[in-house]
Amino acid sequence: MTEPLRLGIAGLGTVGVGVVRILRKHGALLEKRAGRPVVITAVSARSHTKDRGVDLSAYAWEDDPVALARRDDVDVFVEVMGGHDGPAKDATEAALHAGKDVVTANKALLAIHGQELAELAETAGRVIRFEAAVAGGIPVVKALTEGLAGNEITRIMGVMNGSCNYILTRMEDAGLSYEAVFQEANQLGYLEADPQLDVGGIDAGHKLALLASIAFGTQVDFDAVELEGIGSITIDDIRQAADMGYKIKLLGVAQMTGRGLEQRMSPCLVPESSPLGQLQGGTNMVVLEGDAVSQIVLRGPGAGEGPTASAVMGDVMDVARGMRMSTFGQSATTLHKARAARAAVPAPYYLRMELLDKPGALAKIAHALGEAGISIDRMRQYGHQDTNAPVLIVTHKTTRTALEEALADFKSTGVVSGTPVAIRIEAV
Amino acid sequence: MTEPLRLGIAGLGTVGVGVVRILRKHGALLEKRAGRPVVITAVSARSHTKDRGVDLSAYAWEDDPVALARRDDVDVFVEVMGGHDGPAKDATEAALHAGKDVVTANKALLAIHGQELAELAETAGRVIRFEAAVAGGIPVVKALTEGLAGNEITRIMGVMNGSCNYILTRMEDAGLSYEAVFQEANQLGYLEADPQLDVGGIDAGHKLALLASIAFGTQVDFDAVELEGIGSITIDDIRQAADMGYKIKLLGVAQMTGRGLEQRMSPCLVPESSPLGQLQGGTNMVVLEGDAVSQIVLRGPGAGEGPTASAVMGDVMDVARGMRMSTFGQSATTLHKARAARAAVPAPYYLRMELLDKPGALAKIAHALGEAGISIDRMRQYGHQDTNAPVLIVTHKTTRTALEEALADFKSTGVVSGTPVAIRIEAV
Repeated sequence: MTEPLRLGIAGLGTVGVGVVRILRKHGALLEKRAGRPVVITAVSARSHTKDRGVDLSAYAWEDDPVALARRDDVDVFVEVMGGHDGPAKDATEAALHAGKDVVTANKALLAIHGQELAELAETAGRVIRFEAAVAGGIPVVKALTEGLAGNEITRIMGVMNGSCNYILTRMEDAGLSYEAVFQEANQLGYLEADPQLDVGGIDAGHKLALLASIAFGTQVDFDAVELEGIGSITIDDIRQAADMGYKIKLLGVAQMTGRGLEQRMSPCLVPESSPLGQLQGGTNMVVLEGDAVSQIVLRGPGAGEGPTASAVMGDVMDVARGMRMSTFGQSATTLHKARAARAAVPAPYYLRMELLDKPGALAKIAHALGEAGISIDRMRQYGHQDTNAPVLIVTHKTTRTALEEALADFKSTGVVSGTPVAIRIEAV
Repeated sequence: MTEPLRLGIAGLGTVGVGVVRILRKHGALLEKRAGRPVVITAVSARSHTKDRGVDLSAYAWEDDPVALARRDDVDVFVEVMGGHDGPAKDATEAALHAGKDVVTANKALLAIHGQELAELAETAGRVIRFEAAVAGGIPVVKALTEGLAGNEITRIMGVMNGSCNYILTRMEDAGLSYEAVFQEANQLGYLEADPQLDVGGIDAGHKLALLASIAFGTQVDFDAVELEGIGSITIDDIRQAADMGYKIKLLGVAQMTGRGLEQRMSPCLVPESSPLGQLQGGTNMVVLEGDAVSQIVLRGPGAGEGPTASAVMGDVMDVARGMRMSTFGQSATTLHKARAARAAVPAPYYLRMELLDKPGALAKIAHALGEAGISIDRMRQYGHQDTNAPVLIVTHKTTRTALEEALADFKSTGVVSGTPVAIRIEAV
């Protein structure tokens, strides 16, 4: 096959422009690797007139991404617009119906409509590739779907939102509050227009749901991801964790349990000496565990023009080379609906609360834990000036259900001020 | 395509048995992922009667791997025998001539005969896949060839011999000499029958040469790898390095320079806070740098039954899924012969030597460095009991050529006892 592979690029933001730059710069290199030219024939974006710093004059222009997706001179529809409904979904469907392959960076679209789109692609005999949707420049979709295809996957974990990791490490390094660093990150443009997508764990949850589908052969089910953001993490939590040899990360974990598929995206304590614990700033990390390989760890930039465009181009090059693959690594018709297991896997927990300075307060808390069947690994009460005493407890392994029982009991003791913070300690 | 993919496995050591175990355990899972059954039809090894802990009775037996490679009921020849000539090469060639695809774990074979075998595969319209040959369970060949296919690769680095990394970290942790840990590792069976393959950097050099070919589109050229083993590293070097915030690793580096392709496998100092610096024990790590992605880091088990078999199966699954690829990521006819650049990239160096306890000794050394155009970043002379004073110097960036000039000059000063140790400090 030596005819050119012709791309139509929908979306000319950071990622789209990055893809254009790579294709302009490395045409000869890409042709040598793919055995055929890879070219852009048409592009689409909201504004035709905006200066994006790259020369687009050689490409046909479409105002409407659906029209772009249907063009006869487009073989691959490259969707880098974003949004889980509306034009991105319409154009992706139009592309598949028109017999085009799709390469997308759109995690939300696939996390929410992945199963129906995978089925549509299969019916149309086309592929959907989405390396750029998960962990930016890290080729983790490929590693999981292809590299580890001989493994039963036992667990996947990941720090997959660079903005959250930036906020948490910056809080620690500068000794600043969550609120202060959040404002700072927002001003620096590190956060989505709706910051809750980042700090609420939604964006990272989308990515986790996609990886879980591949890992466990299940229909992607974002609604089943237990989501907890980083908004309640204080600088005190970070310091206490550090004192005990831990770091706090917004960590995604997916694993198949006897009770179903557990998917969580929540702040966790991880050992500071582990690769996850050592991850600083906006970098992403994904840990893949399989029965044969044991564990591999992938680390790299989770966002940005170059890294995301690199991932898009990896998919484009696969298509150019004729390497075709089911969307989630097996026929969409064989993906099963997983039962969602909530809180199935027990773990130790870090608890922080303020106790009223009354005799017997600590005993009441200890008792409530005992009643819930939770034993205590470590407990500290700190010196204090005001009427509340900060107390820190690390439990032995317990289920989330037992823990919530204990937390409810704490309230009825009348000695806890405010809402206790409970953070899972993940064995990584 | 729903007919079974039929494997003939040559070699039933650790890796071969691992592949058999995966196929026996995960038949249904693999079939779902590949869309077709993947089965073993025939096996071959030196001894037919040896008990390997797996039931081989369902598979045809061949004493001769060449006969196995030619069997009509074999689609993929899985070569996990080892050895860069003799039966492994004969059988691989026979397989390609007979129209079989080849999946191999044999780094030596490909590092030495890779170009001719890639050409043969291309003529025969067959593929050679070798994920298991480099860094065990880490899917680094795939990440480099496919995931980063949109990048101009700027540098690759790796700790790719677990035995060497085990020796170096064990020396540090236990405060033992190289000789003591070498004996220990040998007794534990961590080293090759010819330990020089490990500690001399040859095995890791083979792996580096393979990655360099993919990265830079060059004909694999193991002879051009500058090799330096870990045998001259002392516990003192490790401690001095640690004092300065460095770890010593047997590090492979390949990069394209204005003077040609530089490939080095040698002990290097790397910052202890870097991912490479934090790598403990037998784990492998590969760092891939490209102009778009910037840097990704892959970490995982570099050897062992499960991890290596996982890599073999990743390749087998690609073949089963019809995903086919040139051996080194582009047509063998387009791979160019790189000029070998020796010592092209300057770096700071760590120098350790014993000076005779004479007035002006240190000045003579400093003078020799200055004459070679090398400036000194740090210098320490240690207290001592005998007639020799241990001296440690960290230079600013210099070329290896200038350094060797200075080292030659050291001799003529008459104040240096023995041979100075010079270890490159790599920016990672």
